[in-house]
Amino acid sequence: MSLVVRNIPRADVGVIDALAGFGVATVHEAQGRKGLLASYMRPIYRPAQLAGSAVTCEVAPGDNWMIHVAVEQCKPGDVLVVAPTSPCEDGYFGDLLATSLKARGVRGLIMDAGVRDVAVLTEMGFPVWSKAIFAQGTVKETIGNVNLPLVCAGALIHPGDVIVADDDGVCVVRRAEAAAVAEAAREREANEIDKRAQLEAGVLGLDLYKMRERLAEKGLKWVDEAP
Amino acid sequence: MSLVVRNIPRADVGVIDALAGFGVATVHEAQGRKGLLASYMRPIYRPAQLAGSAVTCEVAPGDNWMIHVAVEQCKPGDVLVVAPTSPCEDGYFGDLLATSLKARGVRGLIMDAGVRDVAVLTEMGFPVWSKAIFAQGTVKETIGNVNLPLVCAGALIHPGDVIVADDDGVCVVRRAEAAAVAEAAREREANEIDKRAQLEAGVLGLDLYKMRERLAEKGLKWVDEAP
Amino acid sequence: MSLVVRNIPRADVGVIDALAGFGVATVHEAQGRKGLLASYMRPIYRPAQLAGSAVTCEVAPGDNWMIHVAVEQCKPGDVLVVAPTSPCEDGYFGDLLATSLKARGVRGLIMDAGVRDVAVLTEMGFPVWSKAIFAQGTVKETIGNVNLPLVCAGALIHPGDVIVADDDGVCVVRRAEAAAVAEAAREREANEIDKRAQLEAGVLGLDLYKMRERLAEKGLKWVDEAP
Amino acid sequence: MSLVVRNIPRADVGVIDALAGFGVATVHEAQGRKGLLASYMRPIYRPAQLAGSAVTCEVAPGDNWMIHVAVEQCKPGDVLVVAPTSPCEDGYFGDLLATSLKARGVRGLIMDAGVRDVAVLTEMGFPVWSKAIFAQGTVKETIGNVNLPLVCAGALIHPGDVIVADDDGVCVVRRAEAAAVAEAAREREANEIDKRAQLEAGVLGLDLYKMRERLAEKGLKWVDEAP
Amino acid sequence: MSLVVRNIPRADVGVIDALAGFGVATVHEAQGRKGLLASYMRPIYRPAQLAGSAVTCEVAPGDNWMIHVAVEQCKPGDVLVVAPTSPCEDGYFGDLLATSLKARGVRGLIMDAGVRDVAVLTEMGFPVWSKAIFAQGTVKETIGNVNLPLVCAGALIHPGDVIVADDDGVCVVRRAEAAAVAEAAREREANEIDKRAQLEAGVLGLDLYKMRERLAEKGLKWVDEAP
Amino acid sequence: MSLVVRNIPRADVGVIDALAGFGVATVHEAQGRKGLLASYMRPIYRPAQLAGSAVTCEVAPGDNWMIHVAVEQCKPGDVLVVAPTSPCEDGYFGDLLATSLKARGVRGLIMDAGVRDVAVLTEMGFPVWSKAIFAQGTVKETIGNVNLPLVCAGALIHPGDVIVADDDGVCVVRRAEAAAVAEAAREREANEIDKRAQLEAGVLGLDLYKMRERLAEKGLKWVDEAP
Repeated sequence: MSLVVRNIPRADVGVIDALAGFGVATVHEAQGRKGLLASYMRPIYRPAQLAGSAVTCEVAPGDNWMIHVAVEQCKPGDVLVVAPTSPCEDGYFGDLLATSLKARGVRGLIMDAGVRDVAVLTEMGFPVWSKAIFAQGTVKETIGNVNLPLVCAGALIHPGDVIVADDDGVCVVRRAEAAAVAEAAREREANEIDKRAQLEAGVLGLDLYKMRERLAEKGLKWVDEAP
Repeated sequence: MSLVVRNIPRADVGVIDALAGFGVATVHEAQGRKGLLASYMRPIYRPAQLAGSAVTCEVAPGDNWMIHVAVEQCKPGDVLVVAPTSPCEDGYFGDLLATSLKARGVRGLIMDAGVRDVAVLTEMGFPVWSKAIFAQGTVKETIGNVNLPLVCAGALIHPGDVIVADDDGVCVVRRAEAAAVAEAAREREANEIDKRAQLEAGVLGLDLYKMRERLAEKGLKWVDEAP
Repeated sequence: MSLVVRNIPRADVGVIDALAGFGVATVHEAQGRKGLLASYMRPIYRPAQLAGSAVTCEVAPGDNWMIHVAVEQCKPGDVLVVAPTSPCEDGYFGDLLATSLKARGVRGLIMDAGVRDVAVLTEMGFPVWSKAIFAQGTVKETIGNVNLPLVCAGALIHPGDVIVADDDGVCVVRRAEAAAVAEAAREREANEIDKRAQLEAGVLGLDLYKMRERLAEKGLKWVDEAP
Repeated sequence: MSLVVRNIPRADVGVIDALAGFGVATVHEAQGRKGLLASYMRPIYRPAQLAGSAVTCEVAPGDNWMIHVAVEQCKPGDVLVVAPTSPCEDGYFGDLLATSLKARGVRGLIMDAGVRDVAVLTEMGFPVWSKAIFAQGTVKETIGNVNLPLVCAGALIHPGDVIVADDDGVCVVRRAEAAAVAEAAREREANEIDKRAQLEAGVLGLDLYKMRERLAEKGLKWVDEAP
Repeated sequence: MSLVVRNIPRADVGVIDALAGFGVATVHEAQGRKGLLASYMRPIYRPAQLAGSAVTCEVAPGDNWMIHVAVEQCKPGDVLVVAPTSPCEDGYFGDLLATSLKARGVRGLIMDAGVRDVAVLTEMGFPVWSKAIFAQGTVKETIGNVNLPLVCAGALIHPGDVIVADDDGVCVVRRAEAAAVAEAAREREANEIDKRAQLEAGVLGLDLYKMRERLAEKGLKWVDEAP
Repeated sequence: MSLVVRNIPRADVGVIDALAGFGVATVHEAQGRKGLLASYMRPIYRPAQLAGSAVTCEVAPGDNWMIHVAVEQCKPGDVLVVAPTSPCEDGYFGDLLATSLKARGVRGLIMDAGVRDVAVLTEMGFPVWSKAIFAQGTVKETIGNVNLPLVCAGALIHPGDVIVADDDGVCVVRRAEAAAVAEAAREREANEIDKRAQLEAGVLGLDLYKMRERLAEKGLKWVDEAP
């Protein structure tokens, strides 16, 4: 038996939109260096950037049936997150599904598998992060869960978690932590403005971050010539 | 002993050009989900789209000699298909060979290995799908077959088969099936116009494809809250 | 104990700039088909092209501390070359480090690991060749050598060697050989002008390179029809 | 800040030992085809088979410090489960740590990274499933969590979950489901005794599982000769 | 529509058994260095060696239904060859199917995907060459062709071709060429007896194969000291 | 032009034999965690252990000609180290070459490519560490250097360096450092005897290595229950 959960909690839209404004790298650092999906998750076009509420969808290898089920559970501002029960690069998703998601106000797709019709998706401006681009078709035979927690590209994602994605990849933020992470990201970014200005002016990170003493303690030696 | 076959059958140009107008995903579906080359075959620039008659060329690892032989067998409208006898990512092909192919009216290259000079190839508008981009040079010592059937990126290709390629990858269509596949692709695309319109209007795939009953039979349950 | 070497020899700027004008494929051929880094080293944006003097930096997996040390050793015209002591795809490098390198006149980065903030790096026009794009943060705990020889993406690189990089990948030229390689590349390119013109005019490589006799000696047969 | 949780619930020893008697394939099927770790997790010697309670340990790339912390939390019958915060194949674990775990009655190690001293581990009969065998040493600089849930080789593991491993790989069973899964596995195995006997006697699966009618409905045709 | 072909030609049993006695390397050389499956096809235990007539079976990703269909087409002396329509590492095959194949006199399995129950298969002495070992279960929903030609691990295999496999991997020999290849392999092996004796006696390959002159012509220089 | 260097320095046999007695992990640690070849270099059978003087051999992809040249440069106690100029998994080496090397007293082979005849090599007891096992044959057309430094599986190796290999992989020790590394390895091993005894007796590494205070300083907290 598989389940489709209709009601999921979502984070505050203002918080989600704030997170969308920060890069994945910043959000990932702001929440203590956690939540990244595997580095093989790449955008099908660049630049691309979004944040949204995760609707999670489990699929069988070579079978995209449950994506059709998941579409109905998506609301404006959501991001659809799809993971296969075993590794697969088939083309689970194309322009018709994207049309349907776009009609529902969905912001993008995170697919731990393959997608196709990428030229059309690019023209549509529908952002997708995927493991592969592959035209291989799929069947509609096996059911799975929608809106239960799943592991996608190595990261645990609960329905309603916030997905942040850009050219660097994809990060998940726990719903309950989203507001705090957005605030921490804001502070981190503010903090970087001054740093960037100093680095642009030629100040060295060694001095800006006061690293010289600790490096010496660790045993680093500067010599004029190679031994 | 290796052979170069001079006369190969080719599909009707009108059929080839019709196939060029459909995407790889559509053609692949239209012929019963077969014929795709491996997902690692990627275009060196995007967007790119073509169809043409396959001229097949077998090469030794690290040896591009036979490509020079194959060039002579190419005619306007052809696509050169090259596969090594064991996996290799060397840069078998660069701008001089592209110049030669272009002069003969060849539409593009399918290379189950590496290519180089991709900045120039991009400027020239000569489309290539390859396994790798790698500047590694090759030698000219070992002969192989031209215009015999070969396996390229996991797909069997006969000389004269139709190659269809776009941003989603590469597909081969048997010459004898090309006309029927083009017709099936046309029907499939026509059929999608109405579907796309309905999906844009917010109709769900669940309803459009009448999936609800069969999902329930398989045991799918909708619940309001996660258990 | 780890060492930072302050004074390294560098090739003549005129020679470096000459090498920058040739593609990686040409330079690689001109020096006898050696010096290429692995094909997984890809530019974060295209087109990109540079040449510069290598400043080498060894880092621990998941630890970018030594990059901060290496920045101080960089001079205008240099290229920073970073290799981890064991394979790692973490995001060692982002926009703040790029700001710092740019302020010092560094021409680009060769990173046998991951980088992040690639959207900003692209806007900045700071070219990077890397193994991965990954937002994963790093620590600052372990020291390593700066400006000692290291193996980066399969190639041995000495500080002061010339790095040449473009859309085809990355090549290293020994400092002592740089002038001769630049001259050989110039000759090679000059030699290709005439060849390109002939190929454009439809002359076959088989004839231009006088290959037919040797192919026949090897046993190649041309037949009209497949057997 | 990182946490070490001292008290974790564990499944009943009788249930764990029952699960140890079934293969991973059987347990995985018995719990509805879920819980497998990635196929790259391989035993360092074969045959090997175990079940035990998971003690979970998060490590930084190239840093095995937290394994020393986790050892103290292990009790007889446990299995240590280690996952890095980003992919790494370094040799986190060798014969000294195995000696320590063995002294505490730990049944084996699940390591989503590399291990070393495998000849000695084999002699000791200490079973390990790992992503790699690699002698690369690690540092002790970065802390992480012990006995919090983590994703290991693509599977979510809670402390106290039951780990089942054999030559086919590794499977996790939720603690609360362990007894039911053991019972289902027992039934499944009992059910297979008769099937195996029939198959040995030459009965076809097509008949044993009554597949012929459904295959025909799907459109399968038997023909005497290839078309 | 998919087809199951009942009658396939098979090579002479004496020829097949003769091929079984040669190693894969010898057979591959004897037929002109062709016919090898990809190097990722590895035996689940070593040593293992066989030859047999191919029964070919196409399966969908994550779906082993057609293997049950193919079993019925197998006769004593056959080898079952299974390839998925897109890459998949799921555990398509385990001890029950092996029991069934063994009951029919099948000599082994070539699986371009995953298998499970490898401890039992090893005990049974049922040899398998596969891409992966993975316990992941499969469904029975999608049909495919049995005994039509397919590409398995990069090699084209017709039903009735001879499969030769050992610790070095897997090779296919065309049925029509099997007798000639067996004879060529016999000659090759006879020829190696004397060579091996000479090499054992300390004769150098350089002299045995008379390589020195040609090496010198190519430009090889022997020097006493490194330059 | 390529060179074969006849005279290379070798380390003291007593030192080499001492290094053979330590594991790769110990030697790697004793020399400051450097010198490991990539983790994909695996022994074709286990257990296997050796040390010897490197004779280095560069080969073209798919071309094993230079191995025949290198054999002549090998003396008793040597280890042949072969690296292709671009990645290749072909079967460069089989039982005839092993026979020849064994006749010359060579201790084993390090091959950053494929080998074949592994069943025979196993029977012969000729140890090989390789990237792949693959029956694919090679040609004899292209020359390369013998006994010049090369990069093999990511590590720089000079002729005459000491190669140490066991079930954990392969490590290179600089000839000039071999004696000191052997001494450091001896001390390291002596030092581990007492540690191992204490760990066997149940002393925790946390106490043996006095880690508790530094862990607390880094911010590690022990709690009784998960938060």
